[in-house]
Amino acid sequence: MRCMSSDPHYKQVQTLLQASLPEGGVIADAAGLRPYECDGLTAIRQQPWLVVLPETEAQVAAVLRICREHDVPIVPRGAGTGLSGGARPHARGVVLSLAKMNQIIEVDAHNCVARVQAGVRNLAISEAASAHGLYYAPDPSSQIACSIGGNVAENSGGVHCLKYGLTVHNVIGARVLTSTGQCLELGGKVYDAPGLDLLAVLCGSEGMLGVITEVTVTLLPRPPAVAVLLAAFGDVEAGAAAVANIIGQGIIPAGMEMMDKLAVQAAEQFAHAGYPLDAAAILLIELDGCDEEIDHVCNTVQRLLETAGAYQVQVARDQADQQRLWKGRKSAFPAVGRLAPDYYCMDGTIPRRRLGEMLRAIEELSREYQLPVANVFHAGDGNLHPLILFDANIPGQLENTEEMGGKILELCVAMGGTVTGEHGVGVEKLDQMCVQFSATELTQFHGLKAAWDPAGLLNPDKGIPTLTRCGELGGMHVRQGQLPHPDLERF
Amino acid sequence: MRCMSSDPHYKQVQTLLQASLPEGGVIADAAGLRPYECDGLTAIRQQPWLVVLPETEAQVAAVLRICREHDVPIVPRGAGTGLSGGARPHARGVVLSLAKMNQIIEVDAHNCVARVQAGVRNLAISEAASAHGLYYAPDPSSQIACSIGGNVAENSGGVHCLKYGLTVHNVIGARVLTSTGQCLELGGKVYDAPGLDLLAVLCGSEGMLGVITEVTVTLLPRPPAVAVLLAAFGDVEAGAAAVANIIGQGIIPAGMEMMDKLAVQAAEQFAHAGYPLDAAAILLIELDGCDEEIDHVCNTVQRLLETAGAYQVQVARDQADQQRLWKGRKSAFPAVGRLAPDYYCMDGTIPRRRLGEMLRAIEELSREYQLPVANVFHAGDGNLHPLILFDANIPGQLENTEEMGGKILELCVAMGGTVTGEHGVGVEKLDQMCVQFSATELTQFHGLKAAWDPAGLLNPDKGIPTLTRCGELGGMHVRQGQLPHPDLERF
Repeated sequence: MRCMSSDPHYKQVQTLLQASLPEGGVIADAAGLRPYECDGLTAIRQQPWLVVLPETEAQVAAVLRICREHDVPIVPRGAGTGLSGGARPHARGVVLSLAKMNQIIEVDAHNCVARVQAGVRNLAISEAASAHGLYYAPDPSSQIACSIGGNVAENSGGVHCLKYGLTVHNVIGARVLTSTGQCLELGGKVYDAPGLDLLAVLCGSEGMLGVITEVTVTLLPRPPAVAVLLAAFGDVEAGAAAVANIIGQGIIPAGMEMMDKLAVQAAEQFAHAGYPLDAAAILLIELDGCDEEIDHVCNTVQRLLETAGAYQVQVARDQADQQRLWKGRKSAFPAVGRLAPDYYCMDGTIPRRRLGEMLRAIEELSREYQLPVANVFHAGDGNLHPLILFDANIPGQLENTEEMGGKILELCVAMGGTVTGEHGVGVEKLDQMCVQFSATELTQFHGLKAAWDPAGLLNPDKGIPTLTRCGELGGMHVRQGQLPHPDLERF
Repeated sequence: MRCMSSDPHYKQVQTLLQASLPEGGVIADAAGLRPYECDGLTAIRQQPWLVVLPETEAQVAAVLRICREHDVPIVPRGAGTGLSGGARPHARGVVLSLAKMNQIIEVDAHNCVARVQAGVRNLAISEAASAHGLYYAPDPSSQIACSIGGNVAENSGGVHCLKYGLTVHNVIGARVLTSTGQCLELGGKVYDAPGLDLLAVLCGSEGMLGVITEVTVTLLPRPPAVAVLLAAFGDVEAGAAAVANIIGQGIIPAGMEMMDKLAVQAAEQFAHAGYPLDAAAILLIELDGCDEEIDHVCNTVQRLLETAGAYQVQVARDQADQQRLWKGRKSAFPAVGRLAPDYYCMDGTIPRRRLGEMLRAIEELSREYQLPVANVFHAGDGNLHPLILFDANIPGQLENTEEMGGKILELCVAMGGTVTGEHGVGVEKLDQMCVQFSATELTQFHGLKAAWDPAGLLNPDKGIPTLTRCGELGGMHVRQGQLPHPDLERF
């Protein structure tokens, strides 16, 4: 830092940025920079050179042009709630926060869309649309705080993505600035934009291709009625079988979540949701539709749960009961956080029907590493969140945790799944990307990145590992069941 | 052609291709080439140099490598049912037909997916999945013939895309060969593939980026019950208002189609579907779900239709009646084809609420150009198919038709819509792409294309106009309501 503040090159850039932004739009002091040192992946910290807070698209464009001309890296940042370090600052770079671009431009109920600036909070869209009986479906658990621009950058999921899709399925337009500050207007209020689908490629691109300034999302009508079911199982595999049977019957619940014993106990102590403390696993299932449909589907689901071996099924039809049941799930992460000094939240996806197998494998790894694991799953779409409990103050535990976490992700790939569910790659999963993808595929990613950002200034060293890095890991790419760690073969 | 057959360069390539493919895998004679001269856009024809018919992915890779090494253009082709000339051959190039790669590899009912080769017909997927009560939702009207690879390349739509999305929303994995013949394995059986979303960018890329050899699609459960409603209106704007009101109530029908008087009359004479011949417009609405839900929604929709001014509403609950009502719509294109020697099928999209306005504008253009227009709409998602009737034997009528068609597409853009709905750009809509997109956006498309196909051999001169071409058209890009044809301002 000290050397940068006296470097005439950086001094010049800072002066240019200050001239382009309103009063207070450039943060350069250590205290001001501190909140930007990390995102939700708090274990990895880095102080940025500067933080800029533009208030208009023109100001964002000016920042991009200045940085491009002076070869300064840019890390775009939404609300900083990401869990894979996608917004980790660059020591010699600028963090470009979209927080001040938070206007809801238009709620167009006729076309069931909303146009909003990138910094608008996820939940604020549904709040603005509620007057028309509409809402925005994707609901990451950080939805009170996270921004729609960040959601697009990470292609965020959430409980309701089982039925309503990920962010990419619910966004139909965006304004995006390229690395040279030029504006692309992609999609619009209707489907079927011609040309190459640049919008889809931006979803999940983690700030590496361009800076999103405005997003047009589709809105859905609030379902007239909702039911929430809680089912308790004596063993986790019975719960996993119930999930498969429900989907196998062609029923797509609005949400279908699973928690194992440790997660249930932690959540119950924290939230008093009325969860059965003796359950090896519980399922929470939300059904939505009209009353008649819910009556019908609810009966079917209840029968399927009992057939799979549920020893208790609660059905909540009124809102207070439903909120109580969800409260436990929604507080599962902080609740588990009280069980140990630290926990590491993993995020991977497997084909649904292998849930039981995967849970067994995690249990075995947990015994082997002597690290307890609490499992919280978006069971319906096979998205796992094993939470590995550890104590960073005990020498070696962090390293053991990371090693075990890496093995869980590699098992996801070997089972036909992926190394991310909804948290992105960021800096956290670069090594696992080497497992997931071949050199040909990674080369294609780099080619696409270079077509957008030839100077490589947008969020450098994130999302896509270099071939060198993968090579150093020893050609880890797994396909056709071949595993990098031969000891994983037993699963 | 003659010069190519004696050119040693081309002779060598032909020998290499023949050596890489099974007996009969290379077509070089004029009679054999004839069926490949055009796709569904029959007005534009070009004989290719050769047609190749690989039977395995390895053979496709060999074709790509040989062509790349010898600088020969490749035009990938599915079933050749496309309507925008995306599969128009290159005079000095190879047509790469995927027709012989037609194996259904796997129907995985547990994960609700099917893995199929690119040449498998759209309808064959649903047929194979029907034993499990599942089906593949996107249903282009050519679904008996068109291939899933072509569907991905064009991001095809269909009647049921209103509720169930376009091809891009129903495909979760693909194997793709790059222009150098290397294989990319994209996505899989689960959502949330990490890395840049190359799969989404392939959807709608019209064979310009890579050759799709295998596709993994999501399957949906067959709805337990269906109802089809027919509503007749005395004027088209009342029909358009009904569409807006139904969606405005948060009801997303499985399909919602509109036909105007000329289309209704042609279809009725052809198919005897029982359509009211005095209607200025009819709506066909399909609802699906469980019986109780349909009872409920059917009543609401019926009330909304009557409020909007429908003078007749038929409700078909049994399959025979439903098929009769759909038969008219499904035969609308051939039926209209009997009204005039030629017709030109347009394809554009506008925001739903401007349907009435657009119909008025088309009517005025029709009067002005003295060319009758029959309108068939996917009304629910604002996708228009105006069919302009003309006689190519009358000098000037084809040119007038094309001019009028171009103006309709430009109006789509000016109303906040797009120049394609579901037929792609191909060669047909290159000029309109200049209206839809700015130079910055087109440059981004070209950059992405170059990252995939640096030699420019994959389906050259399709999908994305050059900046020079757009420049020669006089910088037609429309945004903020500015129109290239000032005479369109009146709408």
